[in-house]
Amino acid sequence: MKIEGLVTSPETKARAGQIHTDHGSISTPVFMPVGTAGSVKSLSPDDLIETGSQIILGNTYHLLLRPGMEVMESAGGLHEFMSWNGPILTDSGGYQVFSLGQMNKISEEGVVFQSRLDGSKHTLSSEISMDIQRVLGSDIVMAFDECTPYPATVEQAKISMQLTHRWEQRSLDYFRSTDPLYGHAQQLFGIVQGSVYPELRQESAKVLVDMGFDGYAIGGLSVGEPKADMYAITDVVTDILPQDQPRYLMGVGKPEDLVEAVSLGVDMFDCVLPTRNARHGILYTWDGPVSLKAAREKDSHFPLDSECQCYCCQNFSRAYLRHLFKANELLVYRLASMHNIHFYHDLMARMRQSIVDGIFGTFRQEFFASYNLKRAETNRSS
Amino acid sequence: MKIEGLVTSPETKARAGQIHTDHGSISTPVFMPVGTAGSVKSLSPDDLIETGSQIILGNTYHLLLRPGMEVMESAGGLHEFMSWNGPILTDSGGYQVFSLGQMNKISEEGVVFQSRLDGSKHTLSSEISMDIQRVLGSDIVMAFDECTPYPATVEQAKISMQLTHRWEQRSLDYFRSTDPLYGHAQQLFGIVQGSVYPELRQESAKVLVDMGFDGYAIGGLSVGEPKADMYAITDVVTDILPQDQPRYLMGVGKPEDLVEAVSLGVDMFDCVLPTRNARHGILYTWDGPVSLKAAREKDSHFPLDSECQCYCCQNFSRAYLRHLFKANELLVYRLASMHNIHFYHDLMARMRQSIVDGIFGTFRQEFFASYNLKRAETNRSS
Repeated sequence: MKIEGLVTSPETKARAGQIHTDHGSISTPVFMPVGTAGSVKSLSPDDLIETGSQIILGNTYHLLLRPGMEVMESAGGLHEFMSWNGPILTDSGGYQVFSLGQMNKISEEGVVFQSRLDGSKHTLSSEISMDIQRVLGSDIVMAFDECTPYPATVEQAKISMQLTHRWEQRSLDYFRSTDPLYGHAQQLFGIVQGSVYPELRQESAKVLVDMGFDGYAIGGLSVGEPKADMYAITDVVTDILPQDQPRYLMGVGKPEDLVEAVSLGVDMFDCVLPTRNARHGILYTWDGPVSLKAAREKDSHFPLDSECQCYCCQNFSRAYLRHLFKANELLVYRLASMHNIHFYHDLMARMRQSIVDGIFGTFRQEFFASYNLKRAETNRSS
Repeated sequence: MKIEGLVTSPETKARAGQIHTDHGSISTPVFMPVGTAGSVKSLSPDDLIETGSQIILGNTYHLLLRPGMEVMESAGGLHEFMSWNGPILTDSGGYQVFSLGQMNKISEEGVVFQSRLDGSKHTLSSEISMDIQRVLGSDIVMAFDECTPYPATVEQAKISMQLTHRWEQRSLDYFRSTDPLYGHAQQLFGIVQGSVYPELRQESAKVLVDMGFDGYAIGGLSVGEPKADMYAITDVVTDILPQDQPRYLMGVGKPEDLVEAVSLGVDMFDCVLPTRNARHGILYTWDGPVSLKAAREKDSHFPLDSECQCYCCQNFSRAYLRHLFKANELLVYRLASMHNIHFYHDLMARMRQSIVDGIFGTFRQEFFASYNLKRAETNRSS
């Protein structure tokens, strides 16, 4: 998979381009909303299009446990099942097995784990993950890896990285030996691991590039390490990854992280923060995040952001949103999610435009001059 | 308020017409979705329009407690607050005070009650209810009444009815002595009480018609009495109410109730059932209600109703909806509510058309021949 029409920024490593899938083209840099269980929480496919979504993410782990692969296959894949006709990227399931699964048993073969829903036993391996992602029919498939826990010693990180490399080679071999089920092409991305150790990350990036994937992800970041490490590792890895293929920084992040990572040459992002924060009443503005549950918004009969073009800001006041949050009215989770996803897409679109215009450096400076990182931010899980 | 262009059905008392408000005209018979706390649960104003909603209901009791009348007045009324530009009907608050309020103290003056939210003390009376509904700015205001508890002896029902009549006269007098706050006209409806006793209902209807309201509601039904009583009382009351003014059967009901009550000459309805049932996975079809949580829908990769024009049926399968219900995904509450509200509006539109075409009797027979009342119906509260 090539990144086409690549434009680079003169002062940074930021880049803008396009990637093509059988479900449509994607302008990068791009943010991918997370559709955990076959739905980007509270949003319909029409809402996703209206907010500017070009591609969404689906979680293999969640879909494997519910509705299960029999239903997914009889539905004809995830696009059909959820009525989303744009591109989909699915993860390998590994990350959630390690973070959510119970009674994991990791071996060279893969992972055995218990469902958190009903206690049933499941196995995930390179081959099984590829089979599942064939059934889901995602446009971009992720290789099976181990997300190295943080913190890890350099020795632990190395052992984990080497296991990941063996699993990724198996993923690639098996993926190449099988065919898509639904007539559209699927691309396979490799995932660079190596914790916070630059030499391991360099080694991992080189090993994966030699294997020859359709695109490359940076995994195992945003797992608790200092921000400086996240940026430094991203910088090291993007220096090695091929210029003409897409780079995806997994699970990142906050708006400020996206700006920094774009400046380091990342093309693709996913994160649950915009939708999760929306459900907790934290909404994004160009001045920073705002809590719409705050008493000071009681009589704020004006939009969250009067210049925002999203359905929420075009129609509803802060006072109304605050009321809905206080009353636990379902409508507000959708409105707030629409705004936050729109904000993330708007941020990416402005970065893309500033790269094309050759002024990304100025955009970045202006962003950090106005965006107050500390306002009402939250990271609590849903 | 006149009901215009009245067409009556040859075999029944069913009627079709139009009523006009400053926020738009309404074709009757009409179902009004309930926007309890400033939101028809899970639906946006655009969703309401798309499902065919002509007028919605707001609850004085809920809005009085939260966000409160200061916020409502500074917002410029309920239309502005919730961004709904169509007609709104508000109830008097009385019904919820009696059913939800704590520590009620009823006197000739009115009712003192405690907020279920924070224990604060509030008073509701004819005059206060009119003031609140002026602040809300609803197009149709309901007089303050006592919803007679069921069961009640004829003596209890009579005492309650007489109190209601005094409260309604005070509502009317006070309403006439005050002006709308926002430049659009407001109409006042009286409410007929008298429990299940035909003589009391006849007396109540006559007393109210003599007072001279803009329209008339039938209150105190669908509170536990046998269906036969509900229909018999409705029949008795519509014989007395003026032909040229709208009649509104409060809190009713199930699809079969709407068909019967239309045949008895009712023009307007409201009920939480379609939205509440939607949130519990009970969806309406022309064959009767269906439970979309049922295991048999696991692989039902076809719409709930392939002929239904709603957004839900046009885009999603039963299997997907079932999956979303099982996963508690927020999206499904909206999709299911859209379908159920669309079904109710479609039912009203078909009745309207059959009245205009002079074939309502046939429509009614065909409806009951295909609609299975017992399928998966639920009444449990949300």
